[in-house]
Amino acid sequence: MDVTYLSDILKKVSEKSMDVDTALESLKHLPYEDIGYANIDQHRNLRTGEAEVIFGQGKTPEQIAGIVSHMMHDNARILVTRASAEAYEAVKAVAPEAVYEKLSKIIMVGAMPEPKAEKGTIAVVTAGTSDIPVAEEAALTAEFFGDKVDRVYDVGVAGIHRLFGKIDRIQSADVIIVIAGMEGALASVVGGLVEVPVIAVPTSVGYGASFGGLAALLSMLNSCANGIGVVNIDNGYGAACLANKIMKR
Amino acid sequence: MDVTYLSDILKKVSEKSMDVDTALESLKHLPYEDIGYANIDQHRNLRTGEAEVIFGQGKTPEQIAGIVSHMMHDNARILVTRASAEAYEAVKAVAPEAVYEKLSKIIMVGAMPEPKAEKGTIAVVTAGTSDIPVAEEAALTAEFFGDKVDRVYDVGVAGIHRLFGKIDRIQSADVIIVIAGMEGALASVVGGLVEVPVIAVPTSVGYGASFGGLAALLSMLNSCANGIGVVNIDNGYGAACLANKIMKR
Amino acid sequence: MDVTYLSDILKKVSEKSMDVDTALESLKHLPYEDIGYANIDQHRNLRTGEAEVIFGQGKTPEQIAGIVSHMMHDNARILVTRASAEAYEAVKAVAPEAVYEKLSKIIMVGAMPEPKAEKGTIAVVTAGTSDIPVAEEAALTAEFFGDKVDRVYDVGVAGIHRLFGKIDRIQSADVIIVIAGMEGALASVVGGLVEVPVIAVPTSVGYGASFGGLAALLSMLNSCANGIGVVNIDNGYGAACLANKIMKR
Amino acid sequence: MDVTYLSDILKKVSEKSMDVDTALESLKHLPYEDIGYANIDQHRNLRTGEAEVIFGQGKTPEQIAGIVSHMMHDNARILVTRASAEAYEAVKAVAPEAVYEKLSKIIMVGAMPEPKAEKGTIAVVTAGTSDIPVAEEAALTAEFFGDKVDRVYDVGVAGIHRLFGKIDRIQSADVIIVIAGMEGALASVVGGLVEVPVIAVPTSVGYGASFGGLAALLSMLNSCANGIGVVNIDNGYGAACLANKIMKR
Amino acid sequence: MDVTYLSDILKKVSEKSMDVDTALESLKHLPYEDIGYANIDQHRNLRTGEAEVIFGQGKTPEQIAGIVSHMMHDNARILVTRASAEAYEAVKAVAPEAVYEKLSKIIMVGAMPEPKAEKGTIAVVTAGTSDIPVAEEAALTAEFFGDKVDRVYDVGVAGIHRLFGKIDRIQSADVIIVIAGMEGALASVVGGLVEVPVIAVPTSVGYGASFGGLAALLSMLNSCANGIGVVNIDNGYGAACLANKIMKR
Amino acid sequence: MDVTYLSDILKKVSEKSMDVDTALESLKHLPYEDIGYANIDQHRNLRTGEAEVIFGQGKTPEQIAGIVSHMMHDNARILVTRASAEAYEAVKAVAPEAVYEKLSKIIMVGAMPEPKAEKGTIAVVTAGTSDIPVAEEAALTAEFFGDKVDRVYDVGVAGIHRLFGKIDRIQSADVIIVIAGMEGALASVVGGLVEVPVIAVPTSVGYGASFGGLAALLSMLNSCANGIGVVNIDNGYGAACLANKIMKR
Amino acid sequence: MDVTYLSDILKKVSEKSMDVDTALESLKHLPYEDIGYANIDQHRNLRTGEAEVIFGQGKTPEQIAGIVSHMMHDNARILVTRASAEAYEAVKAVAPEAVYEKLSKIIMVGAMPEPKAEKGTIAVVTAGTSDIPVAEEAALTAEFFGDKVDRVYDVGVAGIHRLFGKIDRIQSADVIIVIAGMEGALASVVGGLVEVPVIAVPTSVGYGASFGGLAALLSMLNSCANGIGVVNIDNGYGAACLANKIMKR
Amino acid sequence: MDVTYLSDILKKVSEKSMDVDTALESLKHLPYEDIGYANIDQHRNLRTGEAEVIFGQGKTPEQIAGIVSHMMHDNARILVTRASAEAYEAVKAVAPEAVYEKLSKIIMVGAMPEPKAEKGTIAVVTAGTSDIPVAEEAALTAEFFGDKVDRVYDVGVAGIHRLFGKIDRIQSADVIIVIAGMEGALASVVGGLVEVPVIAVPTSVGYGASFGGLAALLSMLNSCANGIGVVNIDNGYGAACLANKIMKR
Repeated sequence: MDVTYLSDILKKVSEKSMDVDTALESLKHLPYEDIGYANIDQHRNLRTGEAEVIFGQGKTPEQIAGIVSHMMHDNARILVTRASAEAYEAVKAVAPEAVYEKLSKIIMVGAMPEPKAEKGTIAVVTAGTSDIPVAEEAALTAEFFGDKVDRVYDVGVAGIHRLFGKIDRIQSADVIIVIAGMEGALASVVGGLVEVPVIAVPTSVGYGASFGGLAALLSMLNSCANGIGVVNIDNGYGAACLANKIMKR
Repeated sequence: MDVTYLSDILKKVSEKSMDVDTALESLKHLPYEDIGYANIDQHRNLRTGEAEVIFGQGKTPEQIAGIVSHMMHDNARILVTRASAEAYEAVKAVAPEAVYEKLSKIIMVGAMPEPKAEKGTIAVVTAGTSDIPVAEEAALTAEFFGDKVDRVYDVGVAGIHRLFGKIDRIQSADVIIVIAGMEGALASVVGGLVEVPVIAVPTSVGYGASFGGLAALLSMLNSCANGIGVVNIDNGYGAACLANKIMKR
Repeated sequence: MDVTYLSDILKKVSEKSMDVDTALESLKHLPYEDIGYANIDQHRNLRTGEAEVIFGQGKTPEQIAGIVSHMMHDNARILVTRASAEAYEAVKAVAPEAVYEKLSKIIMVGAMPEPKAEKGTIAVVTAGTSDIPVAEEAALTAEFFGDKVDRVYDVGVAGIHRLFGKIDRIQSADVIIVIAGMEGALASVVGGLVEVPVIAVPTSVGYGASFGGLAALLSMLNSCANGIGVVNIDNGYGAACLANKIMKR
Repeated sequence: MDVTYLSDILKKVSEKSMDVDTALESLKHLPYEDIGYANIDQHRNLRTGEAEVIFGQGKTPEQIAGIVSHMMHDNARILVTRASAEAYEAVKAVAPEAVYEKLSKIIMVGAMPEPKAEKGTIAVVTAGTSDIPVAEEAALTAEFFGDKVDRVYDVGVAGIHRLFGKIDRIQSADVIIVIAGMEGALASVVGGLVEVPVIAVPTSVGYGASFGGLAALLSMLNSCANGIGVVNIDNGYGAACLANKIMKR
Repeated sequence: MDVTYLSDILKKVSEKSMDVDTALESLKHLPYEDIGYANIDQHRNLRTGEAEVIFGQGKTPEQIAGIVSHMMHDNARILVTRASAEAYEAVKAVAPEAVYEKLSKIIMVGAMPEPKAEKGTIAVVTAGTSDIPVAEEAALTAEFFGDKVDRVYDVGVAGIHRLFGKIDRIQSADVIIVIAGMEGALASVVGGLVEVPVIAVPTSVGYGASFGGLAALLSMLNSCANGIGVVNIDNGYGAACLANKIMKR
Repeated sequence: MDVTYLSDILKKVSEKSMDVDTALESLKHLPYEDIGYANIDQHRNLRTGEAEVIFGQGKTPEQIAGIVSHMMHDNARILVTRASAEAYEAVKAVAPEAVYEKLSKIIMVGAMPEPKAEKGTIAVVTAGTSDIPVAEEAALTAEFFGDKVDRVYDVGVAGIHRLFGKIDRIQSADVIIVIAGMEGALASVVGGLVEVPVIAVPTSVGYGASFGGLAALLSMLNSCANGIGVVNIDNGYGAACLANKIMKR
Repeated sequence: MDVTYLSDILKKVSEKSMDVDTALESLKHLPYEDIGYANIDQHRNLRTGEAEVIFGQGKTPEQIAGIVSHMMHDNARILVTRASAEAYEAVKAVAPEAVYEKLSKIIMVGAMPEPKAEKGTIAVVTAGTSDIPVAEEAALTAEFFGDKVDRVYDVGVAGIHRLFGKIDRIQSADVIIVIAGMEGALASVVGGLVEVPVIAVPTSVGYGASFGGLAALLSMLNSCANGIGVVNIDNGYGAACLANKIMKR
Repeated sequence: MDVTYLSDILKKVSEKSMDVDTALESLKHLPYEDIGYANIDQHRNLRTGEAEVIFGQGKTPEQIAGIVSHMMHDNARILVTRASAEAYEAVKAVAPEAVYEKLSKIIMVGAMPEPKAEKGTIAVVTAGTSDIPVAEEAALTAEFFGDKVDRVYDVGVAGIHRLFGKIDRIQSADVIIVIAGMEGALASVVGGLVEVPVIAVPTSVGYGASFGGLAALLSMLNSCANGIGVVNIDNGYGAACLANKIMKR
């Protein structure tokens, strides 16, 4: 709820430049566009140049392309996560400059910004090779939001010397996203080695008693290391959002 | 169990117009037709013009078409939920006027009735675009049963101004069906804003720790708002049935 | 959110009887009282004579009594659910006329209203004797809200003649609350025998694979009978709230 | 462990017709044939004419056909459950007279025996049309074992008059197999109406909170009706085995 | 539903010895007594001398004693399962001859009948010493119903020679109740060694990943031995009921 | 692993002021004290004045007091979470100035520091009154770590005007800890209204299908609002740790 | 099944020193003693001096003492696990020299043997102080079986320098038992640092989403380090048994 | 962490043959190769001739082939588990001598070594034919590691004479891997019959309430036989690793 917007309306009513009924009506029409199957926020993008994000999973290619086309304008920067190759084909028809990152299933419309290096670095750390698709969803999202990212992949605890070989890169980051499937122990070990916020992403990598990522999720929630915030299984995007908000401080 | 029917039989026995054995036999043959793989109620439809419903999931196209053909008569009105395109092909062969709503997987035989607007309105509200297939199952079912429906889609709580922008439509409804996946928080928020009955439908929209809709289901069952009745995950049809029974009051 | 209240404020601003800052401030102070550990709604009770409700579980006797004392006024009608005997002692100190229903763990302050019989009847139906505490929570709540209640207890499906012996009372109700633990089959059977809305309350009655009411909960959610809304395990209060909202139509 | 067989060996040793080492060796070679990927019991079939059973799920068509070919002899009677169409093709190559029941996924080699009607009847009862594949697995197995079966399909509790219409067939059976998905309430209702043993088979029919048959399974295990034995989800074969053992008394 | 009873009523109506309204009324009053918190079947006991059973768990001592006192008459035989010592005290006040079996928590009113040995024997088999309370619930119930019981305790599979030492007693039984906690493997092993029906009772004996008996329950449901019917965790009473029904054949 | 410490050792070895064996030995003795049942870090506290923390749950009062006594020194600042009243008695014997916060079960040794207000504020927000113990664990921990805390209690979404009445306090915070049981929807609603990092703490407040906090946990993990990090159920301490790390940026 | 014993019987039958019936009978009476509620193996102890073990949980003090008294003889060595103080009192009455280890709830009758140091060492490693009771169950059991044990406690991964400070003790062991609750990550880290077999024991230490040890259990089963065998939650005894069998090689 | 390696570095620093910065740097570069998506250990293989292992699941064929090509050298011996046919095609391009075992999905590069028979034998035992793929993963891995393997397949407890027919092969093994799905009872029975370590592998073989192997997993964890270590569902490879470590003693 946009407090400024509300205050504006009240001011106009007070100045008699807006009558009560119109004001009441305006409160019902905060700036988004209803296209039937979606209500699209438009103000942020228009005013601030910030990136808009579409969660692609569960939407048809037509719906995704339709939302993109309503968001399009000069300098629009749009990120579509969990996008299929079919969705990309549909988006290209309305935004020809769109690019598709197959591994992370991300579509990007608009230029990747220069990272604001002075703000510091987000380390994106994975336990294994199979966790990389989730890691790339996190890394590309953070980069699209303007953050600097350092990728540290395949440093799981079973061969802890691999982790220690890269511990200085991890320790010099300002926020750390730890991505691990199976038993997810990497989050606890990294959490015990650093002083900065750690965001843990369990992945569905594993089989049998991993129960689709449940083992890693429970492991991370019960971490004996403190200061770890957990997001949903495979939610690289959400981890990047939280990291970005922390970086903005 | 049809008390009138039972009373009728007893009366005939008393009047000697039916002997005891026949009466006992009649009690075993309440009016449905056994076609081997299904027992079809026929009386309601014939007498009252009410819609018959077939739950399509788990039935073969042949079985569905077979049941439809036994239900067919002048002015028959039949709804098939969870129907595949193949089922529709089979039904068309026995009921050529049948129409198929692809999004909601509903087959309808017979005309959509005029909504009885004086009875009021059912608001069908979704958190996101991906919940629309379940919402359409609910909305079309309610309309086929004669209710007036107002569709309010994509008003999830992450952007609560979208909900408030349409709150008067929601608040003016007589029954509200809230459909949401992921964390299902919309049910609680809507439940706190209205005085009328709320029916909550968790959906399987989500991934990871949504566990196929379990997260939304538990969320809705534990709602801190009172007066919310919950139905099965993705059960748009069931929600419409309950709403219709409430509207009949 | 009280639309009338909002409209009032806007009107005053327009009429210059309230300045913008005061209006903005007022929007932040909708009528509830902050007593530190709780924010108490006061308007409804004061204006309408409707009952206020306190959910007692998880609150200390002191907190409950404190909230009651802030709600007290002439003709106040207050219901405390899930209240311990200790809570009752504390409440009596601030509201000496309070009564305590031990079986349902309900404290009531203020007179039980005459049921509005013309509105119809809520049938509260249990499968067994052990379900009665939950049933009484539902029945007393509904009666405190002004509804007429018919109690039909111990009619579980294992001896279905007991159910049929009372089926006319059940079929003549306007809303039916079905309360059952163990396998919860009573909800489906009743749901198949009536045309009015059914609210199903699973209870934690049972042992072993009932898993604290999970079996009954899942059973009711998956009912083959349509038009059943389910509430949380043992949530007799919530069922009464929903029934009351339906009765108000 | 075949006590007769053991006793025979001991007797021979005692009579010096078998030396100790041979006896010890014999105990290790009870009559089955090791074909590498399976150890095939052969005695029962050879001596008694009883049917042999192969659980087809998880075995390759080649393995199934291989086991069948080792079991083949004059008058062999072999049942393969959970068999794919491919498995049937492979079996036909070694047992050309084999027949395949597509609905129940059963292959049968050898003639279906005349049911021993004097032993009584097994009623196989389903809640819905979608439960029929499991029911046919049960019914065909029982018939292949020589039992008389009465099929009573689609009599779920949502329309309880359908059940009562066929209650005399159910009540006149000697053992009842109740097959139901969704909430599985039929088992409790039938269990309350009969005096004979009831075997309950939960099915995976349903969606959402049925969790693959878990809801029906828990419901049946918690039945308020007594004397119900439950088997695994979709285990029509196991139910028939238990029913057959009871019928043999 | 008592078909004879229904037939009687119809006959009387036909013979004009009962009018229609009385008949309709009678159908609503099948012979049970409503005492408010319970509906008590009375006919079976009165006519047949069969035992009545009260499930004590979840009922107050007063409720249990109240039900017993309504069931009392000459030669009444009443079993109360899951009864506390307090319940026993209350029952003794209305039925002084009642006895209490502390281990199995069973109260018995009326004499234990002579077992009908010609009907055969039920073997009650446990894996361990800790399973004995559940076993005694089963054994005493079966004996109270008139069955002959052979107790074979503490023969779990970890020391399989203990099982084999008593295998002839097990193999000579007509129905076998296998009671086991922890991993419940005894059911499968016994099931593979006998030809008669096996009823498996998982118990809550165990800790950690036994999850209150879930491990044993799942184990028994998935048994590779056929012909095993499973009842609820710790449900010795239910197992005895099923065994008794099988013995009656 | 303390890189400085490691580097120091290597330097000494290089300068011959430490021989290889001593160095190897030193690496095994990083500065903690082994008291048999615990290994106590001592350096941080001694050098930096930072608070030490003991997780009290699962430790005996003697163990807690023993660890405290080994940590004690001038200006020691020690926090014990999840401490029983008995633990407090034991601690007081070794640290007489210790204070005990009963609601949050926290023992504090050493003075509460002045909050560094320029760093900003952590808002601790609860849905209900019953969530306050967890909230106080979070708030006191953060304050003990030197952070400024704003408590906003009992603003759950069922009465969303209560939340809006305090939205400016919430929106002006730098990090927000949202604490909610039942369905945990408050996290999503707050997450949609603010731009700063949100830490969500599910609580075990609730009953029935809340399954000890599972419902709130899943709800928060599946939040449709982005940028939310979740910690373990009831883990107020962990939330404060993460908030503190974010505040340090 | 004791092959030597079986062979002996057969030999005697062959030599006519035992007739067939006696042999058959003997097979049913392998050397254990049936005391009604338990079948006690006696041979091992008598012949070999090995320790006998009684699992105390779920047995009454009387039963435990009864079993001990039947096992008693000169030089008897008996271990009772999960024993209450009451059980110890009862045991002392029949075995006055028994000692009780309160922390691990172990009763020991007979002298603790000298460890066979040449066989090597079992390291018992815990993550935290709260895991020590389970560790002591493991350590005392192993010592009672004659193994040498090295206790390494409170070296969880959150402060990994504590682990590294003791890594040489861990790496020099021949078998390692890792005991950890919460997220159980210690098993993976240790597993990656050693070449010998690792036995992982999840404990119920933790709260919230540890779900009684489930999180640690799943974590250990999904370990990315290879060569880890997992036992039940809190099963220190079982871990010691497996370690002892490995040490015997 | 390689203590020798660490000691070496320290020695060089002490001898001035390596300066401090280089040493610190070296500690960060333990011998593995970073190829972007994976960090490959190279030392073991190069120095010792031991087999390297790649876990194929979740890696693309290109990634697997890439890792193999970096591991390749004269006499390289590489095992790829959970490899698809596509992965095999990609590996063949870089290692033409690679062979593919379709049943177990294993790729092997390099010669199968002669088993060191003097070390003893690992018995790999399965309950059924469907468990063989997991068994072959275990058996081939152990053989590739140089162990002698005895395969004993299809000896599940439902026909316990099959197990006893091969008990001498099982009892003469030095380590036993028991592989079973469904209820997994074979682990307990074998565990009770042998004195050597038993490694239990639950498999996902089964349906319904086996819940993807959960039933067998819980069964094995709760085994009443002692000395059983459990690995993840279907984890034949992990079982072989643990067996190999035990065999090395």
